[in-house]
Amino acid sequence: MFQKILIANRGEIALRIQRACRELGIATVAVHSTADADAMHVRLSDESVCIGPPPAKDSYLNIPSILSAAAITGADAIHPGYGFLSENASFADMVSAHGLTFIGPSAEHISMMGDKIAAKTAMAAVGVPLVPGSDGEMPDLETARSVASRIGYPVLIKAAAGGGGRGMKVARDPSELEDAYRLARTESRAAFGNDAVYMEKYLDKPRHIELQIMADGHGNVVHFGERDCSLQRRHQKVLEEAGSPAISAAQRDALGETATAALRKLGYRNAGTLEFLYQDGQFAFIEMNTRLQVEHPVTEMLCGIDLVREQIRVAAGARLGYEQRDVTFNGHAIECRVTAEDPQTFMPTPGRVIAYHAPGGLGVRVDSALYAGYFVPPNYDSLVAKLIVHAATREEAINRLRRALDEFAVVGIKTTIPLHQRIVDDPQFQAGDYTIHWLEKFVAGG
Amino acid sequence: MFQKILIANRGEIALRIQRACRELGIATVAVHSTADADAMHVRLSDESVCIGPPPAKDSYLNIPSILSAAAITGADAIHPGYGFLSENASFADMVSAHGLTFIGPSAEHISMMGDKIAAKTAMAAVGVPLVPGSDGEMPDLETARSVASRIGYPVLIKAAAGGGGRGMKVARDPSELEDAYRLARTESRAAFGNDAVYMEKYLDKPRHIELQIMADGHGNVVHFGERDCSLQRRHQKVLEEAGSPAISAAQRDALGETATAALRKLGYRNAGTLEFLYQDGQFAFIEMNTRLQVEHPVTEMLCGIDLVREQIRVAAGARLGYEQRDVTFNGHAIECRVTAEDPQTFMPTPGRVIAYHAPGGLGVRVDSALYAGYFVPPNYDSLVAKLIVHAATREEAINRLRRALDEFAVVGIKTTIPLHQRIVDDPQFQAGDYTIHWLEKFVAGG
Repeated sequence: MFQKILIANRGEIALRIQRACRELGIATVAVHSTADADAMHVRLSDESVCIGPPPAKDSYLNIPSILSAAAITGADAIHPGYGFLSENASFADMVSAHGLTFIGPSAEHISMMGDKIAAKTAMAAVGVPLVPGSDGEMPDLETARSVASRIGYPVLIKAAAGGGGRGMKVARDPSELEDAYRLARTESRAAFGNDAVYMEKYLDKPRHIELQIMADGHGNVVHFGERDCSLQRRHQKVLEEAGSPAISAAQRDALGETATAALRKLGYRNAGTLEFLYQDGQFAFIEMNTRLQVEHPVTEMLCGIDLVREQIRVAAGARLGYEQRDVTFNGHAIECRVTAEDPQTFMPTPGRVIAYHAPGGLGVRVDSALYAGYFVPPNYDSLVAKLIVHAATREEAINRLRRALDEFAVVGIKTTIPLHQRIVDDPQFQAGDYTIHWLEKFVAGG
Repeated sequence: MFQKILIANRGEIALRIQRACRELGIATVAVHSTADADAMHVRLSDESVCIGPPPAKDSYLNIPSILSAAAITGADAIHPGYGFLSENASFADMVSAHGLTFIGPSAEHISMMGDKIAAKTAMAAVGVPLVPGSDGEMPDLETARSVASRIGYPVLIKAAAGGGGRGMKVARDPSELEDAYRLARTESRAAFGNDAVYMEKYLDKPRHIELQIMADGHGNVVHFGERDCSLQRRHQKVLEEAGSPAISAAQRDALGETATAALRKLGYRNAGTLEFLYQDGQFAFIEMNTRLQVEHPVTEMLCGIDLVREQIRVAAGARLGYEQRDVTFNGHAIECRVTAEDPQTFMPTPGRVIAYHAPGGLGVRVDSALYAGYFVPPNYDSLVAKLIVHAATREEAINRLRRALDEFAVVGIKTTIPLHQRIVDDPQFQAGDYTIHWLEKFVAGG
């Protein structure tokens, strides 16, 4: 096992990883920018090293500084957290080249999944479902009709050379197909000088469902079930649930079997998340995150597992030591991302926290690096706290979340706690009746 | 279901009950003394009523004031918490007489278990084991020899008329019996004018093991396993675990079967705890608490149950809705009672809390009514926070507890956090190798 781990991150996730290290008896090294000298991840670490000025490129993304900090402190492994260098394959390579262990998958898998097209190709090759479509260019209208009737309406006709929505047309039923097909070709030719088009199933009301997996590099791959991360604003997840209100246990098992078999074939190691769009009973792979995710705590609460501990153990060469049948799913968990933003305008609200009081009691977990007197710097992501609740049922979890939000006091800066309070009280949310478009409309007042 | 519950208590337990009410959608009424006007249980309650000056007899034990507060606010039930009026049978009776529901057992059961002799008699009659003994007076030495050889050495010979340790002698083996028997009789005659003596098994190294039960008054009684509360100082529990490091699952099941059968026969209703001394594989009933206990959270974490919610449901007439086989025991939980006391001298340390920061993260629960700026009044019990951790194994729970204690910041008053840090680092504690005498010696430096 490692003796000392450098945590190449900041904020709540640096603290999260530090906690797992402490519980494993592993010493920690915090790195920080000059803006973060007083941050909690620095205060609570065994050692800390300042790695540069506030801009991320000069500190948290500054590979030579981070590797020097690891060398100076004698760390034997680096945990990248999420964001920053966590999906940087060349960083993972350089960590290894310096004789340290990168706590994450191989550089090859990071690269493969970093290229979204390559990722889809690789996943399709090992049996993971993609959005159904024409599987290449459609030479004529008859082919288009035939593909559309196979995959079902509505369909989306897209320019093969395209991007930015140009050359993209929806046909909601057979009567719209011919026009859509011709318009897409015409627009494609005009925009890209190439009228090749292909077709995909149009998902007008998908949910974002993702599956947490863990692999030990010895052929053992398990999944810890799905998370529903459909509540997004500008592609940023705001509230996540495990399990999904829309997915049955049988669907979870089937998806899990497909995904774990796929990652076993790919020889994947460490934690990873497969992200899918889900609609009408079908999953379509969109991308894979080769790292710990912000929303990992809901899975931890549901399965009674410490994912960071598992990441560290696996990176040290340990076997998982359990099988899929040992993984249990108990109750329901919900996470709210509390950001330092105005809950109306979503403008960032850096500043001094005057008072801070986290909710407590049964089934309530708070992951946050906030404290009274802390100055939230303007330089970084606005996530300042994650409130996670767990209860026997989704209804009880929602009621617990409401009371925990009511107890949560962050004074001095505006946060999105009031937004979460509104979400929790909404009947559609309570019914679990939402898609990836729901939150944008909710925020806009519709 | 109730619409509004008055919580006849203060501090962390008032907040604990309030949280359960909120999650059930039930409004709450806080009562408070003038010393507690700024207390968190008052600040977070839907309504609050001042019921008198700081001395408990004038406020938290003032039955007319509390019943008036319930009447004024239209509460339909009263939860007494622990301590104060929670085991006062006449209060339970008066609550009922005023048309309100007392959230607890019947006044008859409170009375029965409040009389420690009657409780033992009642429990023995329904099959619960007591400390093995002579079952009455021993007329001669031969009887004493025969009882001793039946129950096994060491034995304790006690004055039937006795008390205060007089007329009490230990015989560690057969060679000591005659002297002990004669001395006990002689001392008894001298002290009480009566030389009748009886015999009990002498437990020199017992553990305090208690069993949490819940009964719905419709014949359904389940247990939620045992807690080990052996770590005591001056008969006050300091740290509790669930399960006990000394009890096997088979022992738990057997004890649970005996206890639930007994309470079914007694017609008991609501939550209750049977307390036992445990040594050499034998349990001996000592008393029953007819209320929620301070240490209930370790059971909640172990079983994934909300005991206060269950108390409220049962008091409202609901059936449990699950059976013993539905109760599961997952991992291990430990609770530290953090008191406002000097960790060396145990002198109370009332005063102003300048800064307060509770630990967070996976598997950590804090039940506390402390906040930055709060003045801990000198009038009440010194318990100010309960830190509860849960993990897959006892070893992991201990490591989690250590890191959580290290994060716990209470500035302005001394607390017993440093004592808990010392306990957690002790190899004997880590080995689970302790009796009810262990903590006294540990505190004394031995």
